[in-house]
Amino acid sequence: MDAEPPSDLEARPETRLETGPFTVTRTVRWGDCDPAGIIYTPRVLDYAMEILESWYREVVGVPWLTLNREMSMGAPTVRVELDFLGAPVPDQDLVLDLVVEDLGRSSITFLVTGRDRAGKAYFRAKLISCFVSRPAFKPIAIPQEFRDRIQAYRSDCDMRRGEDG
Amino acid sequence: MDAEPPSDLEARPETRLETGPFTVTRTVRWGDCDPAGIIYTPRVLDYAMEILESWYREVVGVPWLTLNREMSMGAPTVRVELDFLGAPVPDQDLVLDLVVEDLGRSSITFLVTGRDRAGKAYFRAKLISCFVSRPAFKPIAIPQEFRDRIQAYRSDCDMRRGEDG
Amino acid sequence: MDAEPPSDLEARPETRLETGPFTVTRTVRWGDCDPAGIIYTPRVLDYAMEILESWYREVVGVPWLTLNREMSMGAPTVRVELDFLGAPVPDQDLVLDLVVEDLGRSSITFLVTGRDRAGKAYFRAKLISCFVSRPAFKPIAIPQEFRDRIQAYRSDCDMRRGEDG
Amino acid sequence: MDAEPPSDLEARPETRLETGPFTVTRTVRWGDCDPAGIIYTPRVLDYAMEILESWYREVVGVPWLTLNREMSMGAPTVRVELDFLGAPVPDQDLVLDLVVEDLGRSSITFLVTGRDRAGKAYFRAKLISCFVSRPAFKPIAIPQEFRDRIQAYRSDCDMRRGEDG
Repeated sequence: MDAEPPSDLEARPETRLETGPFTVTRTVRWGDCDPAGIIYTPRVLDYAMEILESWYREVVGVPWLTLNREMSMGAPTVRVELDFLGAPVPDQDLVLDLVVEDLGRSSITFLVTGRDRAGKAYFRAKLISCFVSRPAFKPIAIPQEFRDRIQAYRSDCDMRRGEDG
Repeated sequence: MDAEPPSDLEARPETRLETGPFTVTRTVRWGDCDPAGIIYTPRVLDYAMEILESWYREVVGVPWLTLNREMSMGAPTVRVELDFLGAPVPDQDLVLDLVVEDLGRSSITFLVTGRDRAGKAYFRAKLISCFVSRPAFKPIAIPQEFRDRIQAYRSDCDMRRGEDG
Repeated sequence: MDAEPPSDLEARPETRLETGPFTVTRTVRWGDCDPAGIIYTPRVLDYAMEILESWYREVVGVPWLTLNREMSMGAPTVRVELDFLGAPVPDQDLVLDLVVEDLGRSSITFLVTGRDRAGKAYFRAKLISCFVSRPAFKPIAIPQEFRDRIQAYRSDCDMRRGEDG
Repeated sequence: MDAEPPSDLEARPETRLETGPFTVTRTVRWGDCDPAGIIYTPRVLDYAMEILESWYREVVGVPWLTLNREMSMGAPTVRVELDFLGAPVPDQDLVLDLVVEDLGRSSITFLVTGRDRAGKAYFRAKLISCFVSRPAFKPIAIPQEFRDRIQAYRSDCDMRRGEDG
């Protein structure tokens, strides 16, 4: 085990196009699937939460650990809606993207869509985060610095959508 | 390891009162919680799916494996709504109950509520199952035998509710 | 959803016989199993960690949250060995028991065995916990109060084993 | 949600150097960590199983689903040893690599190591897979086609190791 560590590994699988939604590509795992051979329902929420976590870190610039431990805040999910449009199977690649649907004083509404590489949608997840102070767990205004980045992100997504139109 | 296996273990923690909703009590696990010290969002859907699985087995009388392997059917979850009303922490007991809100030709709408032992609600989950044939994955009518048991279950729940009123 | 909360639910499924190992009975979940229809390997370690967590809370008297947050300690697992002797399937009940194999200055060696109700072993897990201070994460002596309870537990297990012999 | 699917996403995060071990880089998830703020023990086995799954698909050329459904075989894990050398935290990148330590008639012994980008080891996992027929679940000889690829893989790893020396 004294081999030198690989040095030329590529970056994280999350990518962000210049203008357009934040996306993550992942392969459906054997262990994410159940004896029916399709993804076990709660794993879809795991996938949606994982792109949300990555988006906070990569787009808003705040890892949840920093938000929690250094800023005494949190952004817990207060509501989830999931629609299952197809049944992903092991080894299948899913391309997830995240759009901000609404930005309130304390809360953010996200829409995460999971598609195969041909663009067919397999699930849609609506997630609502609410910023809270810790440990009081009371809603607070989203810090302005974050709000600015989220608005810039929405503009980028809108531009892309306009270009597509 | 040649100790004889314990022989007097109690039954499953699921209980069903004579009349009233099916309930499961469980302790929130350390590993279900995140670095903020509260339950990680997707684990709530795991809990809700687990009581749903138990309900199919104990009340409808059909384990999902039997449904799948012997009857060439499935009852995948096609829609989920979750509302988080509180943040459960490790070692906390949650009492989950399951009510059938609606019974259609192919689909069943469930409401699962998770409360502490004092009755305070921590989450509500609406889950919609749809009966499908396998492997075609096409909606089918819920088998009559199951429908009868589900209707009897609803009556039991309603009676209890009436008594409470 | 204004039904009164069930009031007569039984206690946790963990039991401890007067003399004999701590045991937990659990049903293998659909979502714990993979497309081969058997338990997905890492879930066995989840099961073993869950009885370990319960044992700390119920036998040693210290929930991991208390150990962590109030005592600034931890008892992370530093080594695991798992042997898979059979392949559990959904709906199968597993009876897990936990024996303390060795008690060192800082570390405890556990043997968790998972059997069906007939006594057939499906897996064995050896787990080594090491008490550490937090946040330094340096090994420390197991607090005497805990050591006393662990030794009493070992005596109880030995007595039972002696009676069986 | 009618935006065209992203078309320029990069490939899977698994890479294989020309000569050298198969590696996967992944970020430790918030949801993989516990209230102590470090990775929850069983998640390390999830990580190890995930690189094993990828290796079978990418190096041996057989996804587990194909092995199971089309070839009526399986390669269940029969033994696991895990050593925890450090405590990964959320957002930390781990570089996992997989080496074949031993190749028997039916079984393969793997060593998976998880390191940070600087090369510091956080865990080592020894995993033993055993090829079995399905549904009999009896050990069988590893198919020659797979054995050839595994031996080629071992040669590649050895060459790299030799070059490093």
